[in-house]
Amino acid sequence: MSDRDNQKETQTEELTGLPDDLIYVLETGVEEDIVHALDDKNIDCVRELIKPLHYADVADLLERLDAEDRARLVEIIRTDFDAAILSELDETVRDQIIDLLGLDEVAVAVSDLDTDDAVTVLEELDEAEQRQVLNSIPAAERTVIEEGLAYPEDSAGRLMQREFVSVPEGWTVGETIDYMRASVDSEDNNLPDHFYSIFVVDPDHKPVGKVMLDQLLRTRRPVKMTEIVEPEKKVVAVTMDQEDVAFLFRQRDLVSAPVVDELGRLVGVVTIDDIVDVIDEEHEEDIMYLAGIGEDDLYDAAIDTTRARFSWLAVNLLTAIVASLVISLFDATIDQLVALAILMPIVASMGGNAGTQTLTVTVRALAMKELTATNAARVIGKEILVGAINGVLFAVFAGVIVWVWFGSQVLGLVIGLAMVVNMTVAGLAGTTIPLMLEHARIDPAIASSVFLTTVTDVVGFFVFLGLAAIILL
Amino acid sequence: MSDRDNQKETQTEELTGLPDDLIYVLETGVEEDIVHALDDKNIDCVRELIKPLHYADVADLLERLDAEDRARLVEIIRTDFDAAILSELDETVRDQIIDLLGLDEVAVAVSDLDTDDAVTVLEELDEAEQRQVLNSIPAAERTVIEEGLAYPEDSAGRLMQREFVSVPEGWTVGETIDYMRASVDSEDNNLPDHFYSIFVVDPDHKPVGKVMLDQLLRTRRPVKMTEIVEPEKKVVAVTMDQEDVAFLFRQRDLVSAPVVDELGRLVGVVTIDDIVDVIDEEHEEDIMYLAGIGEDDLYDAAIDTTRARFSWLAVNLLTAIVASLVISLFDATIDQLVALAILMPIVASMGGNAGTQTLTVTVRALAMKELTATNAARVIGKEILVGAINGVLFAVFAGVIVWVWFGSQVLGLVIGLAMVVNMTVAGLAGTTIPLMLEHARIDPAIASSVFLTTVTDVVGFFVFLGLAAIILL
Repeated sequence: MSDRDNQKETQTEELTGLPDDLIYVLETGVEEDIVHALDDKNIDCVRELIKPLHYADVADLLERLDAEDRARLVEIIRTDFDAAILSELDETVRDQIIDLLGLDEVAVAVSDLDTDDAVTVLEELDEAEQRQVLNSIPAAERTVIEEGLAYPEDSAGRLMQREFVSVPEGWTVGETIDYMRASVDSEDNNLPDHFYSIFVVDPDHKPVGKVMLDQLLRTRRPVKMTEIVEPEKKVVAVTMDQEDVAFLFRQRDLVSAPVVDELGRLVGVVTIDDIVDVIDEEHEEDIMYLAGIGEDDLYDAAIDTTRARFSWLAVNLLTAIVASLVISLFDATIDQLVALAILMPIVASMGGNAGTQTLTVTVRALAMKELTATNAARVIGKEILVGAINGVLFAVFAGVIVWVWFGSQVLGLVIGLAMVVNMTVAGLAGTTIPLMLEHARIDPAIASSVFLTTVTDVVGFFVFLGLAAIILL
Repeated sequence: MSDRDNQKETQTEELTGLPDDLIYVLETGVEEDIVHALDDKNIDCVRELIKPLHYADVADLLERLDAEDRARLVEIIRTDFDAAILSELDETVRDQIIDLLGLDEVAVAVSDLDTDDAVTVLEELDEAEQRQVLNSIPAAERTVIEEGLAYPEDSAGRLMQREFVSVPEGWTVGETIDYMRASVDSEDNNLPDHFYSIFVVDPDHKPVGKVMLDQLLRTRRPVKMTEIVEPEKKVVAVTMDQEDVAFLFRQRDLVSAPVVDELGRLVGVVTIDDIVDVIDEEHEEDIMYLAGIGEDDLYDAAIDTTRARFSWLAVNLLTAIVASLVISLFDATIDQLVALAILMPIVASMGGNAGTQTLTVTVRALAMKELTATNAARVIGKEILVGAINGVLFAVFAGVIVWVWFGSQVLGLVIGLAMVVNMTVAGLAGTTIPLMLEHARIDPAIASSVFLTTVTDVVGFFVFLGLAAIILL
């Protein structure tokens, strides 16, 4: 896309002191080259172009290719398929690629992954496939993955990495460092690929606290680990919902947190890079639910997407019919004054938009835990006031426009009054609907929009046509 | 709120093996207690309740209090005001609290912060205030903060922490560890509060690579740093937009990245906890822009919120009037058949909703860089198909309902045809509008909705009423 190309140029120009390939740029062009090479069936060229790519970029590329090119590319890279690609893929595309690779190769790939990534890949497979893959994985690793899969979906247990470094209370900094160096040399090196802190545990394996690696490095060898352990000793329960874990990480600026089982024993660690994925997922849910979509469906087949969106549209058809029934109450009024039919969508539309603004702020504030019992009443009051003020302002504009357009002051007055009422109601409904859904333990993003537009349509048509019937006729 | 209380209970019940206060729970109740104590002017009680709270929780509490209680609380905690609270606050509330504290106390607080957090607090002040605060900060620190403020807004330069650890190429692991231990003991300890990696730099201070701390700890003292340095040697330009930096972190699973100036010299480091804030901001922008709101305005005064939302509503009034003008073209037709006025909002509403679904998926895919030149044509094609299939399905439902309701097969046919056309157009408009905005380098979330609903309203009314005029009359 043109603005990315431009960006790349600007950056590399500015940074003339450095070789081009040292600077991070969002690369383009490569993808098109690969698509061409795939279409030309030029296998060597594809291999050459893929080689320097990061696994996440290969995953993105696989997602964006059409089904045919995707299958071709998988064939070309299957001999040295990087397992990490699987954990980066969108669910729909991952299913296809697992089919293309075959479960045996998937098993080989999965056993290369960290347990949390392995769980991510396996949890989406059906039970028979899961079994088949697990059976091909070495027993020790299999047990760990099975334990991960046993935790509830979207819990800290699923999210956590089960490899972590823990040391007993009695150890010194020196002993800890020696232990890590020895681990690397020993046969059964069980240190995780990356870690940011070391946990100190008591004899029951309950966490006493953690020592950040930079703290460890600043400290002299004879110092006891217990002397530098961080006073923050809170832990995450293995059953905690991942969204709550994400909230904690944001709120406490955590980089990693220990996870404990029901007996309080340290069983894993959640790290911030996993949290970034949860935050993205969470946001995706909010924005998609508000628009009436189950989940991101960019890579689904058209028929699956059609089915997924059908139910929301069906609800919308019902609510639209309800609004039409309201209009039909006033068919005699409209029959006498066609201008009403021309103008009534304006009232409904302004109410709908004002309500959507309020609704979005409220849903977002609930998701970020910014809206609580402490300030709920104040937020509702404010939104009603905002709706009313904007209602009065737009009542004046719309009233004057209608007066000029249809030459009727009274018609202008009617649309103005209807506008004030509908936009005030929009402020009320936009805050109270999500608050009530939250109270009923329903995700406030899911069904808010449909309730809101029903309210603003019904109120908009009813008040406008009703006032017209009373005042005008 | 009831579901949080419930959650707390469940967790502590399950974890009977542990003291209650060891488990992370999202606490409630404390806030209400503090509000009561504030209202009772019971200063000692407030102080007691505030003491155990994390600074982020104090920031949240300050945000949620009303203006009066907020001022009272600031008075109570001003003597030992934690500077970190400032960097956690929403902008509007931060401004108020800075006014309450006074610039001198703010200066004291700011000098306690890491430079990136100090820049965050200062960048929102107006120039005179900035100057006043900066003048009260020690010169060495002031220079660093001023340099931070000199970088463009939302750039890597603003985001990065300017304290980092770098060592020359020739050093060994042992020398590096000794250097860090010595830093702690020396007078001018300039190690950052937390860090996850150490950069190796050449004599020109250009980054050679980085060593993760866990790697350092696994390695024996005589090993050269250059032997364990990570081969990933890409760097972030100080001018790179923060959203692109966030994309890189997600894509590469980075935990930190070096930032270089125009000569390629290492000037700072971006860490993943800063990225989490950028991701949240980015999400907020997307969801708010889609709803026609400038930015999260939960804590703004009603009058500011009213003003901020006014412009979007004004645009909506204009587009609603355009739709009304389309209806007015057919006033004679409606005059003959009032049923048309009753039914026309259904066609527009279904198109609007189908279009919003498509639009949201497209905007999200663009933001996540999942939609590129490679798959744009395919996505547009798919969305048109999805719109058309759902259009046909709902045409049948709506057609039958209208047939039964108004006893007219032809009227049912007209609404059905209009539905198919409008929902297909919605699929086309829902994808192409954001793509065109992106191409024109406008954030596709900002103006998409208003264009989309204009299209679906105009097409909906025009096709339905137009077909009615041709077929029915």
